[in-house]
Amino acid sequence: MAKNKKQNKKELADMEENFPQWYTDVISKTEMVDYSPVKGFMVIRPYGYAIWENIQKEFDKRFKATGHQNMYFPLLIPKSMLEKEAEHVEGFAPEVAWVTKGGDKELNEPLAVRPTSETIICSMYAKWLHSYRQLPFLYNQWCSVVRWEKTTRPFLRTSEFLWQEGHTLHETAEEAQAETMQMLNIYREVAEEVLAIPMLTGRKSDKEKFAGADATYTIEALMHDGQALQSGTSHNLGQHFTKAFEIQYLDRNNEQSYPYHTSWGVSSRLIGGLIMVHGDENGLVLPPKIAPVQIVIIPVAQHKEGVLDKAYELKKILEQNYRVELDDSDNSPGWKFNQWEMKGVPIRLEIGPRDIENGQAVLARRDTSEKITVALDEVGTQAGDLLDAIQKNLFEKALKMREEKTSSAENMDEFQEKLAENPGFIKAMWCGDRACEDQIKEQTGASLRAVPFDEEQEIIGDGTCVCCGKPAEKVAWFARAY
Amino acid sequence: MAKNKKQNKKELADMEENFPQWYTDVISKTEMVDYSPVKGFMVIRPYGYAIWENIQKEFDKRFKATGHQNMYFPLLIPKSMLEKEAEHVEGFAPEVAWVTKGGDKELNEPLAVRPTSETIICSMYAKWLHSYRQLPFLYNQWCSVVRWEKTTRPFLRTSEFLWQEGHTLHETAEEAQAETMQMLNIYREVAEEVLAIPMLTGRKSDKEKFAGADATYTIEALMHDGQALQSGTSHNLGQHFTKAFEIQYLDRNNEQSYPYHTSWGVSSRLIGGLIMVHGDENGLVLPPKIAPVQIVIIPVAQHKEGVLDKAYELKKILEQNYRVELDDSDNSPGWKFNQWEMKGVPIRLEIGPRDIENGQAVLARRDTSEKITVALDEVGTQAGDLLDAIQKNLFEKALKMREEKTSSAENMDEFQEKLAENPGFIKAMWCGDRACEDQIKEQTGASLRAVPFDEEQEIIGDGTCVCCGKPAEKVAWFARAY
Repeated sequence: MAKNKKQNKKELADMEENFPQWYTDVISKTEMVDYSPVKGFMVIRPYGYAIWENIQKEFDKRFKATGHQNMYFPLLIPKSMLEKEAEHVEGFAPEVAWVTKGGDKELNEPLAVRPTSETIICSMYAKWLHSYRQLPFLYNQWCSVVRWEKTTRPFLRTSEFLWQEGHTLHETAEEAQAETMQMLNIYREVAEEVLAIPMLTGRKSDKEKFAGADATYTIEALMHDGQALQSGTSHNLGQHFTKAFEIQYLDRNNEQSYPYHTSWGVSSRLIGGLIMVHGDENGLVLPPKIAPVQIVIIPVAQHKEGVLDKAYELKKILEQNYRVELDDSDNSPGWKFNQWEMKGVPIRLEIGPRDIENGQAVLARRDTSEKITVALDEVGTQAGDLLDAIQKNLFEKALKMREEKTSSAENMDEFQEKLAENPGFIKAMWCGDRACEDQIKEQTGASLRAVPFDEEQEIIGDGTCVCCGKPAEKVAWFARAY
Repeated sequence: MAKNKKQNKKELADMEENFPQWYTDVISKTEMVDYSPVKGFMVIRPYGYAIWENIQKEFDKRFKATGHQNMYFPLLIPKSMLEKEAEHVEGFAPEVAWVTKGGDKELNEPLAVRPTSETIICSMYAKWLHSYRQLPFLYNQWCSVVRWEKTTRPFLRTSEFLWQEGHTLHETAEEAQAETMQMLNIYREVAEEVLAIPMLTGRKSDKEKFAGADATYTIEALMHDGQALQSGTSHNLGQHFTKAFEIQYLDRNNEQSYPYHTSWGVSSRLIGGLIMVHGDENGLVLPPKIAPVQIVIIPVAQHKEGVLDKAYELKKILEQNYRVELDDSDNSPGWKFNQWEMKGVPIRLEIGPRDIENGQAVLARRDTSEKITVALDEVGTQAGDLLDAIQKNLFEKALKMREEKTSSAENMDEFQEKLAENPGFIKAMWCGDRACEDQIKEQTGASLRAVPFDEEQEIIGDGTCVCCGKPAEKVAWFARAY
């Protein structure tokens, strides 16, 4: 193992010294993603896309289990339509890509490549909704969106990314709020239970909320380098869009009413989070539930009689329950160990002539490097137990990391010191004023990530705002962020 | 039943008199699709999208079973890149939507919204491919593409549509040809065995082939109105693109070589085919294997004690194996019958107080209107048998329809007469000259749909070209087409 570590270390930048370079090395060496010829756009390669497909499946089944259906809306949105909700257009206009020509003809009106689809979806909802009997509308769309970004990094911030956007309508404000929270909880559930990433949940400040929302709720993760990653958002849009788009229906009292509206999204950015939370000096570390390959079988001395046969036999047994790969390429076992370690496969199964003689195989864990020898007829159950243990361990490790990188501060000096000493989340009382939020950002580079929900509220120090010293009712979590 | 038929007939145009209007009525009454505010773009609503999801699943599992992996490439392609392969740009340039502005800035180079992705994918393949050991490249992408169309119809021809595009590289011309045919066969298999649509397969003429291909192979279906629908194409691209994009690799002889290339695609157009092949005067008729709802349970006198309970009990049993809906809305059973008939659900299960008393339920087939009474404890197996029978019957009906609408012609007079009398496929000998193909199109409106493969070749009349009378080796199938 020592040798492998050294080799991978040579392939990757040191993650403690140069985390951005380590990230770039990992995503390219694992062939997850590549830079495209169009600046700011990425190509998602098969290994990265397989992770996205697994993420999609996990969310999609939960969306459907809670009554949502998928649809597909046009990629292009007329300029006038994007402009109907004032805050919305102000928020998105600076980053829109515009189609101005179709074939040889200039268009009469420029069309926006969708940066998000509230406007075009609302224009159709206005046509479809007539009666309260039709409500709620519970719809979702899987697609890509384009936002013209100046500084880009694959998965984390690109001019095009893959995502889902849910768009729902409800009779009452209470139902819309319940939907907003339900979807936030589904986001947290998948993030924590499948991706093994602990999430801070809470409400965004007005400064950080979605352009056109009453309230935005967020799941926020902490990366290895102490920076936060906004990983999913759920918006209660109130009646902003339903009024702007004249979505009216005959309510239970036989009167025309505007419905209440939510939208919510997660994106391929989650893959960036996976990499930066679990990765180590040897590359990617994937939670078993999301790994495209859960077990890689590496035959040792594969030219010897019976080795490949036995390896294929094990593969056949294991792939009834797990996603399994057998690497029978001409490369040396050591080279294969490194490659699959780099790719973050949770379990490596080694099988050689001596193992076969002894009726055993070796299982090596990616997360702890621990090796166990197991009887061949127990490989299936042992591997299953090990995958569960790895899944659990990765979450616990990530939670411990977050706890170690979370400090609290009672004043700005302390805020800056702690953030410098131990980059991560800073919990601090906040009076609720935009001015204080702006000043904190300016002085420290940390933005307000979320105001936790009441049940997770606490009082830091004497309960006064970390910035202005006035009485503050709530704690907020701050961090530098991707 | 008589009453229902009459009611649906009133909702739909007469399909024999005005097929285009019938189509428009069906797609809107079933809420499969809607016209969007952007001219030529459609909104795919949940019922239509659920069909697309089922179609995707069927293809995707077959792509993966044959070793293909999914990826994702950028939506936007630089103009200069699109222009690298001469025939390709000539074919696609007139229908490209151009992004010329990002945020507030004019772009230095216009970006095409992808009409298809050969060029950008080849630019990356050139970077990734080094050695023959990496071949074949077997990759696919699910996405939407934009082609600026003047005349559009939902699903059949729209300025944006959903599709998949496979892009593969191979060491030899033979392997590329084998891949081209393998994917064509998968297309035919899904079309025939899942969508229950019989397909003519064969090669496109040079006039009709893909811009930049050595050869294009097609699956062609015949619609109820006698027009053909190109339903999927598989292209052997030879080395056109690999040379234009300088994709070179070190071959087995240690020399730099250009690989051989294929691409292949099916799209949401298949949904249009489903509608126009199987639909009848009462609306949609969906093959069980693709229907979002396979069995709809309609309680009769649902306010009577025990009816809804029994209906839910049956649902619970049936949904272990089938996609089931229970309509317990306030509408009358008659109204529900019509609605679900319109939506093409293969089986309607009726259950009322008397049925429960007798320990039975009624199963009604959408395809034949036949009703059978079955014992409650046999509902599951009987429904399964019925779904199989419906699937089979729909294919046979569609095949019979195609046979009835297929004629052969020995000269142009006969060609025109037969096409007028019995619109559909015309089989005719063709000398292979573009001039004859053009003249046939001009005189009859029929285009050359495919030259069947050798094993399905035949000689019509004296074997001379239907147009010029010169000796002809092959029969071609012609039709007016969507």
